Amino acid sequence: MSRVRVHNLSVSLDGFATGAGQRLDAPFGHAGTRLHEWFFPTRTFRAMQGEAEGTAGVDDVFAAALTPGIGAEIMGRNKFGPQRGPWEDHEWRGWWGPNPPFHTPVFVLTHHPRPSLEMEGGTTFHFIDATPKEALRRAREAAGGLDVRIGGGPTTVREFLAEDLVDHLHVAVVPIVLGRGERLWDGLEGLEERFEVESVATPGGVTHLTFTRSR
Amino acid sequence: MSRVRVHNLSVSLDGFATGAGQRLDAPFGHAGTRLHEWFFPTRTFRAMQGEAEGTAGVDDVFAAALTPGIGAEIMGRNKFGPQRGPWEDHEWRGWWGPNPPFHTPVFVLTHHPRPSLEMEGGTTFHFIDATPKEALRRAREAAGGLDVRIGGGPTTVREFLAEDLVDHLHVAVVPIVLGRGERLWDGLEGLEERFEVESVATPGGVTHLTFTRSR
Repeated sequence: MSRVRVHNLSVSLDGFATGAGQRLDAPFGHAGTRLHEWFFPTRTFRAMQGEAEGTAGVDDVFAAALTPGIGAEIMGRNKFGPQRGPWEDHEWRGWWGPNPPFHTPVFVLTHHPRPSLEMEGGTTFHFIDATPKEALRRAREAAGGLDVRIGGGPTTVREFLAEDLVDHLHVAVVPIVLGRGERLWDGLEGLEERFEVESVATPGGVTHLTFTRSR
Repeated sequence: MSRVRVHNLSVSLDGFATGAGQRLDAPFGHAGTRLHEWFFPTRTFRAMQGEAEGTAGVDDVFAAALTPGIGAEIMGRNKFGPQRGPWEDHEWRGWWGPNPPFHTPVFVLTHHPRPSLEMEGGTTFHFIDATPKEALRRAREAAGGLDVRIGGGPTTVREFLAEDLVDHLHVAVVPIVLGRGERLWDGLEGLEERFEVESVATPGGVTHLTFTRSR
């Protein structure tokens, strides 16, 4: 059975997975790069930028786990771009340039469907207005037996967790206090009871947690 | 210069340091014992209960750091007991029995002062209506050159952190989602900028963080 996975979701000590005030020049709002300082130097992230170098320690081991075995991604509209409401700028094709780092079908959840966007490198964005369950059905179909990644943002991950649709969740707890933004854990009281939870801290101060669904 | 220290403050992934609904039979409200499962088996905690046995691993190393060098404690009234408003039950002498585990002067912050309580084993509870700064001045005086511990609860710790009065903070992040209760981190945006932060995860899944004031 294909699994539903979340990877590399960075969360502050006060539970925010993105800052306040997302803008075109600030995809994570006032958090800036602070939630992802552990991720940016990794070989995994550098490769997404077309660079050959990067760190290959514990952080990269976790970072790199996001790709193998994934056949489709589901993301919220706020991960796709900073626009809200009806689409006004149809030229917007995501934050990632002509060859996005997904290389699979990507289902973008939105109340405003629009035609699919076929990009270079195997990524196709499909814009669908669907419940988490229905979106997952479609993503599974597109994934051809492989796993489905819930790519974020926090609201989308939270919705899939609330409906108990997630099999594997990797969270990186970053030792900062953000104060404002989008909370990951709201409405998920007792979440840990459905998972085996393990953790490992890195010398950089980030703690990687894995939540694996209890069988 | 004597330091101001916080030890063994357990916090959930969503930032709650105590649950909702504190009662006489539930000092941490609906959280029950879940925030302190790492602490209870330690030799340090067991010794407070008059027992000789207990674990002596990483968790106990952190737990045991709360005592050496401490000359006085400051605690909030909600740590002292479950009553609110004017004191109605003067028989209440804290949760800890006739010989509390402090063995120093303890300053209880309350808007309703009452006579000091001298207990066995060197603990004396003083009930004072004071700002954090003023309470710290009095505690330092009583500590005779030793350090002052801010004993909690979360509201009291938060107030001392907000006024930048804390030199050393030990937080244990427990991988549970509490959903409700008293948040530690509210109003402390950017706290990490004033501290060196280190972390270590234990096999049990708890992450110990130390915040040490940057010099």
